[in-house]
Amino acid sequence: MKDDAMKENVILLDHGSGGKIAHRLTTELLLPALDNPLLAQLNDGAVLNLEGCRLAFSTDTFTVDPIFFPGGDIGELAVNGTVNDIAMCGAKPLYLSLALIMEEGFSLDDLKNIMTSIRRAADKAGVQVVTGDTKVVPKGAADKIFINTSGIGIIAAGVDLGGQKAVPGDKVILSGTMADHGITVMLQRQDMAFETGIKSDTAALNHMVAKILDSAPEVHVLRDPTRGGVGTTLNEIARQAGVGICIQEAALPIDPEVAGVCELLGFDPLYLANEGKLLCVVAADQADMALEAMQADPCGRQAAIIGQVVPDHPGRVVMETAIGGQRIVDMLAGEQLPRIC
Amino acid sequence: MKDDAMKENVILLDHGSGGKIAHRLTTELLLPALDNPLLAQLNDGAVLNLEGCRLAFSTDTFTVDPIFFPGGDIGELAVNGTVNDIAMCGAKPLYLSLALIMEEGFSLDDLKNIMTSIRRAADKAGVQVVTGDTKVVPKGAADKIFINTSGIGIIAAGVDLGGQKAVPGDKVILSGTMADHGITVMLQRQDMAFETGIKSDTAALNHMVAKILDSAPEVHVLRDPTRGGVGTTLNEIARQAGVGICIQEAALPIDPEVAGVCELLGFDPLYLANEGKLLCVVAADQADMALEAMQADPCGRQAAIIGQVVPDHPGRVVMETAIGGQRIVDMLAGEQLPRIC
Repeated sequence: MKDDAMKENVILLDHGSGGKIAHRLTTELLLPALDNPLLAQLNDGAVLNLEGCRLAFSTDTFTVDPIFFPGGDIGELAVNGTVNDIAMCGAKPLYLSLALIMEEGFSLDDLKNIMTSIRRAADKAGVQVVTGDTKVVPKGAADKIFINTSGIGIIAAGVDLGGQKAVPGDKVILSGTMADHGITVMLQRQDMAFETGIKSDTAALNHMVAKILDSAPEVHVLRDPTRGGVGTTLNEIARQAGVGICIQEAALPIDPEVAGVCELLGFDPLYLANEGKLLCVVAADQADMALEAMQADPCGRQAAIIGQVVPDHPGRVVMETAIGGQRIVDMLAGEQLPRIC
Repeated sequence: MKDDAMKENVILLDHGSGGKIAHRLTTELLLPALDNPLLAQLNDGAVLNLEGCRLAFSTDTFTVDPIFFPGGDIGELAVNGTVNDIAMCGAKPLYLSLALIMEEGFSLDDLKNIMTSIRRAADKAGVQVVTGDTKVVPKGAADKIFINTSGIGIIAAGVDLGGQKAVPGDKVILSGTMADHGITVMLQRQDMAFETGIKSDTAALNHMVAKILDSAPEVHVLRDPTRGGVGTTLNEIARQAGVGICIQEAALPIDPEVAGVCELLGFDPLYLANEGKLLCVVAADQADMALEAMQADPCGRQAAIIGQVVPDHPGRVVMETAIGGQRIVDMLAGEQLPRIC
C-alpha cells in the first residue's frame, strides 16, 4: 500500500512522522519552495533580529488522538510544545497565539476543559496567550479538535544555540526518561488490557533551560526529542553539524515500566515521542554544571550524560550497546504511530 | 437541529461564522478562560512591547473549501490573511510561520502548487516564511489541507490603532467592492450552472496601509472585513469604541455581477467575506487624504467613504437605505457558508 501511495504521488502518514520521509518532504519540497536561509537552518524555531532585539519565533500544530490522556491533554501539549520549541532556541518564551480548528458537534465541555488546561499550562510556563483564531468545520471534515500555537520569546545577549554548533568533544545530555509520551498515547489508542502507571511527560522546559544556560554558558545545542524521538533528533543534530554522535545504551534513562511495554510491543524507545525532555549538547568541561542544573529542576531529576560528539562518522549516530557491540542509530524510517502530538 | 445541538452543548458551524454566536463563544468561554487584557482587546492582532520594540503578532487558520478557487487558493489566502491582520494593527508585516495539517492521501501536486502560491504571495507582500510545522492525519481525520499562519510585524513610532479608538465625527472608508471572496467560494461550492467573471479579492493590503498611514496619520481604526463581512466588522468597531456608526447604502461599492448573484441567491453582501479589503476609520479632516492614498493603490481603486461615526445609538450600526429609510445593521446572526476562509 505504501508503494502504491508513493506511485500515486500523495501524502502518506510517514510524511508526518518526524522521521526520514518527513525530512525528505521538508528538504525536497517545502524548503525549496520557500527558499529561505532562516527556515533552512531547520532549528526548532527561527531566530530573528528586530531592531536590535533578538527573538525566537516558532509554530506547532497538535492533532493528538486521544485528546485527553494520562498526564495531560491536547491543550497542555499545545502550550508546552511551543514553549519548549522557543526555549530550545535559548529564548525566554513570552507570548503565544492560539488557533483552534473544531469539528461541528465537538463537546463544549471538552472545549472548556481544554481551555482550562491551556490557561494552567501557560501560567506555569509564565507565558501569555495574546491572540487567537477559531474555525469550525462541518462534521467529518476534522477529527474533534486540532490546535496550533505559535510563540515569541526573547534571547538574552550572548546566547547562541543551534544544531549546527555541536563540535567533537561535546557531551550529550538527556534530561530524563525516554518515550513516556509516546507509550502513553500508544497504550490509550491500542486499548490495552493491562493497567500501568505510565503517563505523558508533557511539561514546559523553559525554567530548566534558564537554569542550564546560567550554569553552563557553553551549551551549543538544545533540542526537544518529540516526534521521531531521541534517535531521530540526534541524527538531525549530527547532520546539521556534520559531526558524529556516539551514545551509550546503558546510560539512556528509561522508566522500567515503559521499557517493559516497549519490549512487549516491539517498540524501540529511541524513536518514541517525548514531550517534556530535552537533549543538551555542551562543551565537555561544562557538562557536569549543565547536568547538575538539570537534576536540580523538577523536570530533570533523571538527567544523564548519554554520549559525546565525535569527529568520526560525520552525520551518523552510533550506539555502544549494553552487551558491548556497536550499532548505527538511523533516523526513524517509518511511522510508528500517527497523531502522537 | 440547531436547537438540538445547543441543548447538547456542542460546537455548531455558527460558532465559526465570525458572527454573533462566534462572538459569544469568544467572549463567554475563550476569553474568560485565558483572562488576558491584550487578548480581550479583540483587535486583529496583539500589540506587544518587547524591549522598546513595538510588535504586532497575529494568527489565522485557513480551512477554505474548495482549496483552489477563481482568483486564488488556500496558500495565497493564508499568507494574505495574516499579512492583513498584522497590517490592520498599523504594523509592517515581516515574518510568517506556516503550519500545515494534511490528510493522508492528499495530492503532492496540489501541495506543490499551494507552496508555489505561498511563496509568490509572500514575495509580493514582502514577508518571509521563517518557521514551519507539518502534521499528517489519517484519511478521514481532516479534509485535504488546513493551513495556519502566524505573523510578526513592527509598528512605527506614533502609530496607534485599535477598534476602541473610533470617535464621533470620524469618517468610515471601505477600500473597495464588498463580498467578492464570499460569492466566489459560494459559487464554487454550489456548482452553479451559470458562468461569471467573479473572483476572490484575496490580496495583501500592507503596502496600501503604509501609504494610508503616511498620508493620514489620524487614522484611528483599520480592520479587514473577512468572516462576517462589512456589517459584522462595523458592529465590532461600534461595540469596542462604544460609538454609533451610520453608513449610506448608496455609497457601498459592489461589483454589479456580485450584486446580481447576491440578489438572485438571497444573500446580503454586507455579511459576505472579503479577503482583500479594509475598513478605515479616520478623523474627518483627513478622510480625503486617506481616500486618495487608497485610490492610488491597485488594491483600493474603488475605495469610497461609506459613512461616519456618530454619538447616537452607541454600539449599533445604522444604514440609510437607498430609498431613504433607515435600518439597523446587526452582526451576522447565523452561518451563511462554512469554510469560507
